[in-house]
Amino acid sequence: MPHSVLVANRWRLANSSGYFRAENPATKEPLDEYPVSTWDDCDEALSAAVEAFEELRKLPAAKLAEFLEAYAGRIEARKDEIVKLASQETALPVTPRLAGNELPRTTDQLRQAAAAAREGAWAAPTIDAKNNIRSMYGPIGPVIVFGPNNFPLAFNSASGGDFAAAIAAGNPVIAKANSSHPGTTRLLAEEAHAAAQATGMPAGSVQLIYRTSHEDGERLVSDPRVGATGYTGSRAAGLKLKAAADKAGKPIYLELSSVNPVVVLPGALSERMDDIVGQFVASSLLGTGQFCTNPGLLILLAGEPTESFLAKVVEKFKAAPVGTLLSAGVAKSLQQGVGMLIRAGAHTLVAAKGSGGQGYCQPNTLLRASGQQFLEAPDALQTEAFGNAALAVVAEDLEEGCQVVEHLEGNLTGCIYSHTGGGDDAAYDRLAFRLRPKVGRLLNDKMPTGVAVSPAMNHGGPYPATGHPGFTAVGIPAALRRFAVLQCYDGVRPHRLPAALRDR
Amino acid sequence: MPHSVLVANRWRLANSSGYFRAENPATKEPLDEYPVSTWDDCDEALSAAVEAFEELRKLPAAKLAEFLEAYAGRIEARKDEIVKLASQETALPVTPRLAGNELPRTTDQLRQAAAAAREGAWAAPTIDAKNNIRSMYGPIGPVIVFGPNNFPLAFNSASGGDFAAAIAAGNPVIAKANSSHPGTTRLLAEEAHAAAQATGMPAGSVQLIYRTSHEDGERLVSDPRVGATGYTGSRAAGLKLKAAADKAGKPIYLELSSVNPVVVLPGALSERMDDIVGQFVASSLLGTGQFCTNPGLLILLAGEPTESFLAKVVEKFKAAPVGTLLSAGVAKSLQQGVGMLIRAGAHTLVAAKGSGGQGYCQPNTLLRASGQQFLEAPDALQTEAFGNAALAVVAEDLEEGCQVVEHLEGNLTGCIYSHTGGGDDAAYDRLAFRLRPKVGRLLNDKMPTGVAVSPAMNHGGPYPATGHPGFTAVGIPAALRRFAVLQCYDGVRPHRLPAALRDR
Repeated sequence: MPHSVLVANRWRLANSSGYFRAENPATKEPLDEYPVSTWDDCDEALSAAVEAFEELRKLPAAKLAEFLEAYAGRIEARKDEIVKLASQETALPVTPRLAGNELPRTTDQLRQAAAAAREGAWAAPTIDAKNNIRSMYGPIGPVIVFGPNNFPLAFNSASGGDFAAAIAAGNPVIAKANSSHPGTTRLLAEEAHAAAQATGMPAGSVQLIYRTSHEDGERLVSDPRVGATGYTGSRAAGLKLKAAADKAGKPIYLELSSVNPVVVLPGALSERMDDIVGQFVASSLLGTGQFCTNPGLLILLAGEPTESFLAKVVEKFKAAPVGTLLSAGVAKSLQQGVGMLIRAGAHTLVAAKGSGGQGYCQPNTLLRASGQQFLEAPDALQTEAFGNAALAVVAEDLEEGCQVVEHLEGNLTGCIYSHTGGGDDAAYDRLAFRLRPKVGRLLNDKMPTGVAVSPAMNHGGPYPATGHPGFTAVGIPAALRRFAVLQCYDGVRPHRLPAALRDR
Repeated sequence: MPHSVLVANRWRLANSSGYFRAENPATKEPLDEYPVSTWDDCDEALSAAVEAFEELRKLPAAKLAEFLEAYAGRIEARKDEIVKLASQETALPVTPRLAGNELPRTTDQLRQAAAAAREGAWAAPTIDAKNNIRSMYGPIGPVIVFGPNNFPLAFNSASGGDFAAAIAAGNPVIAKANSSHPGTTRLLAEEAHAAAQATGMPAGSVQLIYRTSHEDGERLVSDPRVGATGYTGSRAAGLKLKAAADKAGKPIYLELSSVNPVVVLPGALSERMDDIVGQFVASSLLGTGQFCTNPGLLILLAGEPTESFLAKVVEKFKAAPVGTLLSAGVAKSLQQGVGMLIRAGAHTLVAAKGSGGQGYCQPNTLLRASGQQFLEAPDALQTEAFGNAALAVVAEDLEEGCQVVEHLEGNLTGCIYSHTGGGDDAAYDRLAFRLRPKVGRLLNDKMPTGVAVSPAMNHGGPYPATGHPGFTAVGIPAALRRFAVLQCYDGVRPHRLPAALRDR
């Protein structure tokens, strides 16, 4: 018996065109069965979301906050079951990853979003009393959230950053589960639904479907009833949704692929080679490399220090256990990505099978190409190999390194390691000037895999890392703005104004 | 001899595929000849803009402010010549419109943008000192501005709101002149160029081309060298540019068509009928109806007061002089728009030729349809008839009026007139709740044609009035955000941070 969808405030059997099974990627054993919804489910969910939105617009923001906080509490109360199933579905370890890091991050995000909703500054109320013109951001309407495979809790479509931001801004959410962890999403949606009922949220504020056809996905994001969409996932699928949403004039916020270049300058290597080797290897293999901000592209300058650095990384990659990937699909696309890089001219420094490697896995892989090769095939050599693989590009000199940076696509992050005594500063200045417009977040002397939930965070960047360079998917309150519209009140009588826009 | 383009810091003959003539719409006399640029001009301008952007990124914001202020001063010094040519090209009167209102608005916008650039709060610097994560908005790169026909100064691609916002955010501008006032744009660009040189702005910060093929326009907005595009104009052309830009992942901010619904409730009519008649007629015919915020759709409730109101408007439309339209194209599309409304079931209450009407003109036109008709053909009856025409939709009752509002497309503005004593408040609440999500600016008891340059203004709204409901084209500093990207600095060493992000 397949699991139920949550549509229009009730858990019921889907209108389904078929079924799919979750799978344990560590054992390749099948898990539960979930329905592929037809358009009927989408249609009913959209109509229910429209009704929910009408009610949500009448509620004070404190109500949204109460819901988000109650939901966070319920996730904690069911923590053991949630992380256990998430680990079965993703092969991510319960400890420390899921129970110690990701689940607390998830509940923290929900509570930060609650605080932002209650406090209200995210809406930027602006009062021109002299002209009696006032404006603030308001909710955009029903939000569709497509969550990624790699963070089953913190970016889950029913509990993650997009969900929290969309709700905190006053919108109902239709969560589309990621097919690699439908059960985790179901458990979370159960708690979201229970919390919504307990706190008096409108029926239809949170809904869940597991999968649709590609065609219905495109129809969903472009439906007139939709306010906006948040999508995190592969570039190919994301760009199809973007094309559909763009055509309908519907905002869609995408977090797509990124190779997250890391430049390591010679002075940094001369100063603290082993430290940097350790940091890179840890960041590169963290979560079996399945982070949006995984450092997939090293940029180095030719010379002895770089040769030593690469040799040490190779040794560490050999010694490191091989992690299990999230799914058969990830393993296949990683293999294809590495293959494309090799066909584009990169050669393999190491493809280490090491220990570990249960279920779906690929070797810990480090490839190498010259700066010249990169400049001859910059697109192909920026293929994302999502997982435990990285490409080192060794430029002949700083000039060529600068050219490599100039040929980068938009990325979420870019890092430069340099000598702490200032020995690399001239090189830093040239490189950073070129790197800055290519990335959403510029780092010094640290790897990009930590994405703090900070008001100053930007988990965003230029296309094709995202769909719009002015928004961030992580960081509260800024992330709320994606799911908002600017609303002006001109000459509106005082008693009709939103409370935040009345004279103090 | 056709006029020169301004590309890569010099006025030179265009690489042209042909020529077009400006025309005096009041006399239909041809004016000067201007080139249609080939891709070569676009390509050279883009490369020069990229170089300018590299230099602009190194300059302090005070430099941008100096330029904008010097430019405003130069416009004022050449005021007589500019407004004279603008009047010849558009038939808009020198006094009071161009010299008294639009030119001062233009220089005021440039100076407000200068103040915003100098002050810097628009960039929202955000410092998380504990984690050493910091972020702010930075410039997006070369901005293409397509200006509209109806504001030859205040929305001019080389002097208007988009220009001011793009420069103040730190971007070079490639201005694409509107073909109905190329000479005005040329004079303005001459002053912009002179001011740029006098204040030491990088070569290529301001460039001007007059016209391209449609194909090259689409290529321009989607070129990899472009940061973003600002477009104000017709929906058909705007959506073609949007499709091209969207496909390339390039932000494009559009201000397209809007019928700007005005609801007049019975209590307001019983209280102050003549006032409202006067306000509507003045707003409707202002600038011969050629305002983005022209009230093109009245929504009224059936009854004696509405019949009296319409009868009085008809008399005023008959008595009012007929204005001259901006061009042959505007006259033709107005005629077509009125024709489409009539074919969709509207009937003509008045099409008054009155006095005036030199050159390109159409009668002052008021059409009427029932609420039922509107609900049967909501798309066709929302056709924008840009110019001195409006449609009155008379709903049978409040319920039907609410349905009419629910069927509205996205609009820049929406107004509700109601009894000041509260007699219409129940109806207001129902209507305003439905109107709010349809419009960027909600007004009470006033017409929408005044668009104050206020920090609280929203000259924006849901699609298809614009391309994204979170941004405004008027209002400083908010308008700058369109031409900006979010940039985070994570662990970046203090001396490498932008000044605004250093510890205080």
